[in-house]
Amino acid sequence: MNNKDIRQIRSALDQFAIELPSWGFADTGTRFGKFFQDAAASTVEEKFHDAGLVHQLTGACPTVAVHVLWDFEPGEDPKKVARLAKKHGVKVGSINPNVFQDQAYKLGSFCSPDKAARDAAIKHSYDSIDIGKAVGSKLMTMWLADGTNYPGQDSIYRRKRDLQGALKKIHDRMAKQWRGSTLLIEYKPFEPAFYHTDIADWGMAAAFARHAGTKAKVLVDTGHHLPGANIEHIVAFLLDEGMLGGFHFNDRKYADDDLTLGSIDPYAMFRIFDQIAQYAFERDLKKLPDVAYMVDQSHNLKPKLEAMVQTVMEAQSLFAKAQIVDRKALAKAQAAGDIVAAERCLKQAYEADVTPALAKWRKANGLPVDPLEELRSSGIVKKLGKERAAARRARGEVQASSYA
Amino acid sequence: MNNKDIRQIRSALDQFAIELPSWGFADTGTRFGKFFQDAAASTVEEKFHDAGLVHQLTGACPTVAVHVLWDFEPGEDPKKVARLAKKHGVKVGSINPNVFQDQAYKLGSFCSPDKAARDAAIKHSYDSIDIGKAVGSKLMTMWLADGTNYPGQDSIYRRKRDLQGALKKIHDRMAKQWRGSTLLIEYKPFEPAFYHTDIADWGMAAAFARHAGTKAKVLVDTGHHLPGANIEHIVAFLLDEGMLGGFHFNDRKYADDDLTLGSIDPYAMFRIFDQIAQYAFERDLKKLPDVAYMVDQSHNLKPKLEAMVQTVMEAQSLFAKAQIVDRKALAKAQAAGDIVAAERCLKQAYEADVTPALAKWRKANGLPVDPLEELRSSGIVKKLGKERAAARRARGEVQASSYA
Amino acid sequence: MNNKDIRQIRSALDQFAIELPSWGFADTGTRFGKFFQDAAASTVEEKFHDAGLVHQLTGACPTVAVHVLWDFEPGEDPKKVARLAKKHGVKVGSINPNVFQDQAYKLGSFCSPDKAARDAAIKHSYDSIDIGKAVGSKLMTMWLADGTNYPGQDSIYRRKRDLQGALKKIHDRMAKQWRGSTLLIEYKPFEPAFYHTDIADWGMAAAFARHAGTKAKVLVDTGHHLPGANIEHIVAFLLDEGMLGGFHFNDRKYADDDLTLGSIDPYAMFRIFDQIAQYAFERDLKKLPDVAYMVDQSHNLKPKLEAMVQTVMEAQSLFAKAQIVDRKALAKAQAAGDIVAAERCLKQAYEADVTPALAKWRKANGLPVDPLEELRSSGIVKKLGKERAAARRARGEVQASSYA
Amino acid sequence: MNNKDIRQIRSALDQFAIELPSWGFADTGTRFGKFFQDAAASTVEEKFHDAGLVHQLTGACPTVAVHVLWDFEPGEDPKKVARLAKKHGVKVGSINPNVFQDQAYKLGSFCSPDKAARDAAIKHSYDSIDIGKAVGSKLMTMWLADGTNYPGQDSIYRRKRDLQGALKKIHDRMAKQWRGSTLLIEYKPFEPAFYHTDIADWGMAAAFARHAGTKAKVLVDTGHHLPGANIEHIVAFLLDEGMLGGFHFNDRKYADDDLTLGSIDPYAMFRIFDQIAQYAFERDLKKLPDVAYMVDQSHNLKPKLEAMVQTVMEAQSLFAKAQIVDRKALAKAQAAGDIVAAERCLKQAYEADVTPALAKWRKANGLPVDPLEELRSSGIVKKLGKERAAARRARGEVQASSYA
Repeated sequence: MNNKDIRQIRSALDQFAIELPSWGFADTGTRFGKFFQDAAASTVEEKFHDAGLVHQLTGACPTVAVHVLWDFEPGEDPKKVARLAKKHGVKVGSINPNVFQDQAYKLGSFCSPDKAARDAAIKHSYDSIDIGKAVGSKLMTMWLADGTNYPGQDSIYRRKRDLQGALKKIHDRMAKQWRGSTLLIEYKPFEPAFYHTDIADWGMAAAFARHAGTKAKVLVDTGHHLPGANIEHIVAFLLDEGMLGGFHFNDRKYADDDLTLGSIDPYAMFRIFDQIAQYAFERDLKKLPDVAYMVDQSHNLKPKLEAMVQTVMEAQSLFAKAQIVDRKALAKAQAAGDIVAAERCLKQAYEADVTPALAKWRKANGLPVDPLEELRSSGIVKKLGKERAAARRARGEVQASSYA
Repeated sequence: MNNKDIRQIRSALDQFAIELPSWGFADTGTRFGKFFQDAAASTVEEKFHDAGLVHQLTGACPTVAVHVLWDFEPGEDPKKVARLAKKHGVKVGSINPNVFQDQAYKLGSFCSPDKAARDAAIKHSYDSIDIGKAVGSKLMTMWLADGTNYPGQDSIYRRKRDLQGALKKIHDRMAKQWRGSTLLIEYKPFEPAFYHTDIADWGMAAAFARHAGTKAKVLVDTGHHLPGANIEHIVAFLLDEGMLGGFHFNDRKYADDDLTLGSIDPYAMFRIFDQIAQYAFERDLKKLPDVAYMVDQSHNLKPKLEAMVQTVMEAQSLFAKAQIVDRKALAKAQAAGDIVAAERCLKQAYEADVTPALAKWRKANGLPVDPLEELRSSGIVKKLGKERAAARRARGEVQASSYA
Repeated sequence: MNNKDIRQIRSALDQFAIELPSWGFADTGTRFGKFFQDAAASTVEEKFHDAGLVHQLTGACPTVAVHVLWDFEPGEDPKKVARLAKKHGVKVGSINPNVFQDQAYKLGSFCSPDKAARDAAIKHSYDSIDIGKAVGSKLMTMWLADGTNYPGQDSIYRRKRDLQGALKKIHDRMAKQWRGSTLLIEYKPFEPAFYHTDIADWGMAAAFARHAGTKAKVLVDTGHHLPGANIEHIVAFLLDEGMLGGFHFNDRKYADDDLTLGSIDPYAMFRIFDQIAQYAFERDLKKLPDVAYMVDQSHNLKPKLEAMVQTVMEAQSLFAKAQIVDRKALAKAQAAGDIVAAERCLKQAYEADVTPALAKWRKANGLPVDPLEELRSSGIVKKLGKERAAARRARGEVQASSYA
Repeated sequence: MNNKDIRQIRSALDQFAIELPSWGFADTGTRFGKFFQDAAASTVEEKFHDAGLVHQLTGACPTVAVHVLWDFEPGEDPKKVARLAKKHGVKVGSINPNVFQDQAYKLGSFCSPDKAARDAAIKHSYDSIDIGKAVGSKLMTMWLADGTNYPGQDSIYRRKRDLQGALKKIHDRMAKQWRGSTLLIEYKPFEPAFYHTDIADWGMAAAFARHAGTKAKVLVDTGHHLPGANIEHIVAFLLDEGMLGGFHFNDRKYADDDLTLGSIDPYAMFRIFDQIAQYAFERDLKKLPDVAYMVDQSHNLKPKLEAMVQTVMEAQSLFAKAQIVDRKALAKAQAAGDIVAAERCLKQAYEADVTPALAKWRKANGLPVDPLEELRSSGIVKKLGKERAAARRARGEVQASSYA
């Protein structure tokens, strides 16, 4: 790798911040049950502690996404949570309302046939706006579980119009009361709704965002697509339309498997980063476009902290590779219809060994050269496991299976 | 079935015209070869003859979609083709430019890196507009094979912008020179492009249509979706957005299999018709929305004429069932969150025996009660087979396999 | 419908018993949470009560599948459970060991790298055999959640050989100690394992069954296939190989959605029944082949009892239709390569109105003609809801969300 | 990379022969048409020339798969073809009968309802055996296009039994008359049959192979699976069952896209090679298992020769990476349930830069270090294009589109 490539990578890494999800440090599971980890975080403070540790090791994760229902106590001053984050060296990032867990949302939230449920969802969103503003966040990400399980269950038209109205209200309140904020609208083809999902694909998310207003953008969760979908094409299309707001990163082989980034198809993830870099190149931008990179994965079996550090390192590595595609040679090969040469430009960058460049960047930033190895050899996960298990016992908590 | 239901069905059938594709009567195949039928149509006149026969038997197919490259001779007066159609009791329907077959389009048409190819595609589209206007059609349907086979092969951004520009030009020319015409933009996730397809999903088609102008709409081919896609949801969404232009009907189990309508999943087809009827109900429309229904299937093994009559009958049957959903009971059940009752409204209509109602409509229109049986017992397919085989021999034509 | 068809249907319905799952009456959910129903069964007795009620209404469900972990108390005499079933007019059917829920099975059961986990799974299976024998069941169904989430996580070879050995042991113990019993081996492509599942498809299940011995057969869960899989083909193949043991019925649109049977693609379910009837026809059997029909669905939103009655009715209806395919006409059309006529044989049976025949069979068996309507108008679900909610309160139970 | 790894790679490359398909040098297309290349091979000699050139550049392709229908003239001495191969420095490899192209096979070959078609297919297979024996090949690969397009079209049972009988006959004749030969049975989920395919998955192929006899094995085409299928799991399962015969290599994103190997998901291809190496490790074999590696791809747009060299290089690179997985460390991590460490063993090998090791092996074998660059800079493709275009003109041949 030449010096220009190394400089390119180091400069790009300086711009590459990856937000961690607070819920990514807590026990999760499948519908068949949860497997518990002693070191899993149980409290908001433990979540920030863990996120802070990942940031300390990787230098790439200054913010933490929070879940309104799980990380904030009703009535409590949200600034308390912000201070807790600060204590652990991170900031509160995107605000995630939860309009799917309460029994009231059985038939949907903004789309429910029950007006009380719809109103509750809007109310909760307004509360989330207040929290976001109070903690100094700039993003609200909206994922809905809304949908139906059976043909005929509900009117797709009525649901669409109610959802359109609600998102417009939320958007307008954000525009008015929360300066500089952006509403990110997420889509998903299925699960937990198994017949129709009200925001099923990027086209629907973009339509809802357009109806809501200029501060609404689309959030791409890399696991939320039907088999075969070309995600980097969607990303490029949204960028070109000015509608790409950000990402939820994870990997998958089948459905929304929520595996760690790059664990199944690393080349596909590289191609997403490649489109982002290509966009900057074609538009002759000085910087990469402003996109929120967030992790959202649910590694049931990998130790939480290790999985998160591994994810960040994998993201940095693939992101770095995308920066050293020889874009001029690529453009030339593309113009000439020289498919083999054009493909080779991508492959050569993908196959390049970027570890030396990453090591230089890490050293320059006072970080361990192999953050995962550092974490594993530190014994900290084991230590946390003992402490947290003891604390749970002291609180009389039982880690109970979700299924029985 | 009560009289109200029968009246409802008969009135709906009066509004239900299904356009047949001229190419649906000719030999087709897969990439592994073509299997030939003696009775397959070889000439434009034979295609119109066959379409006319289907219309005569079913009373539902007054127009025929034409393929500019296959059905018009360069330099010839298009009105000649229109007169040929008239002679066989049908009219020329939608105009289908062909920008995928010529060697010039190896790397794409409107999206090709080669300006000459892009210009040729626009030129061919302008010629198609002239033809459409001359023959009195009102629709131009645009399906592109544009896409790439390998990551990096071409710039997705450059291709998007060139395509956007071309469709805008074509739209504007149509708006100016071809009164009352509509441009239908089709999407397809893959094939023949196997890495990325420039118009890959309805969201992209709708974006291109919006950029083109108000006379551009989206064309939904029922076989052009990734596994699991909820097509009726897409249809409802497009209707609500005012962007649904029409359909290409066929059925599939795996990819773009181009099987005859309703042969694999008839309930799914019923649910599409149901959303259209539901739209009219919720908007309190006097008539069903104005949507172009077109057949586009490629039944390699079924005899062409039989397959087409079978398709029309199946479409009418499923369409009829969608008219007798008890929409008031459905609305009530939906509002109450009574999923079982709501689903039952759909299922009862789907399972209803609509053959008596169809028979009444056919009799009232002077049509055979069982058009397929009528065709099969007439011996006409056999007779045409003999005549056409003889004619081909006389012309010195060989039906050659496409593969070797 | 002629009298021969009606007789055919009635005789077939006499042979068509559908086993209900005890867990199908309890609250279930997705990984995002559970939505509770007041009338959901909480105790074994309540489950048998509900199953008994469905059997009383439909006359088709004499047995109930039980889940060893959820329906039997350790140390308790299993005959007590059998008596409970009898009290409610049903019998204990297939025995379902549970080797996925315990924390010990985090990395698998028979396939775990941990010998203690493997041994525990075998021990639990042996206990299940004792239970099966004691309660007079004849079937043990083995579904494993075993698999891995990440490439490299474990040795696929070691896991396969350990699983092979365990199933052989269990088979041999059944053959020796539990007369007339059959071991049904289930497969599933993914979930909860998201990289590889140790029994991923029918081919693997059949291989394990062959290795285990002659009393092992394959269990087909209709929701456990990759997108596009032709399930009726698999069913026919297994029947012809003498390896089809039984079914778990449910419907799906995307993954293992566990929707009620026939709710998404009723024609596909009909085609499964058609292959079974066709097998009997081609082999000239006096009776339909001996296959265990079991329901396994997890309708989170539909009221449990209604959903179960609806399922049984739908199964009977589609099963009945498959009996009246004109198999002689079909054979003739197939031999002649007359695709349209052959397909029409299937479609005519599928589209036939079998409600009169079902009504006759129900009347003759002293059953309500519309069991679902009977249940809904009886008010029993509401009554049970009140009673069970009160009982739960009295026991101090809370229906807690599984996610938070 | 340490010296042990380099030795490991070099020794493995010595064992790694990749068979090229003669048809891979000829023009191919999709059902929408063919795009022609001047340098495409038209004659058998041109195909061997091109294969010989690839072998000369890569040193890895000593044999060429032949297609009986396309590469042998009826009545001609097959040894003539063998001599032609020898002239160009290669040998005839696997024999591919063609029982899908002739009009007689419209409804299938061994499975056709028409006995004449079934007999013709067997006869052609016998002829292929004679050819195979005459040219000194040891493999016959059997891919069928047999299947049906519509439910009910034919009896799945009758077809299965006829196919079973035919494959047994062919197997037995091979066993008797063609010493040391193996029959490879290929499977494919769909295309060109779109409802059911008679050999639809590996389980069916293995069942047919078992019924045929001990010399029949399964052929895995990497593009012949439903979305999501875990191919390396299937490969491992077949290896463990002693049923893996060989591979047809290609890559895909959607269906059977026939793209060049590793172009879409290189990590997946690596994992296949990893399972093969892992098998040798766990069984403590001295050599890698005996498996036939064959290319079968249909790169419509890439220049044929370039695509083939690129494919061989990509295969060698991914194969080499699979040899340097630290299998002892992997086994230790797996036994300990240390998922992150186990996964890292795979990822470190996959991400390793093997180009120096490949370069050493190439130099030691007198090969160019970058065979693709060598080919591209040689100008040979251009030269061949001119010569072959001229030769086609001289022969009066037209490269005609397959669609019109």
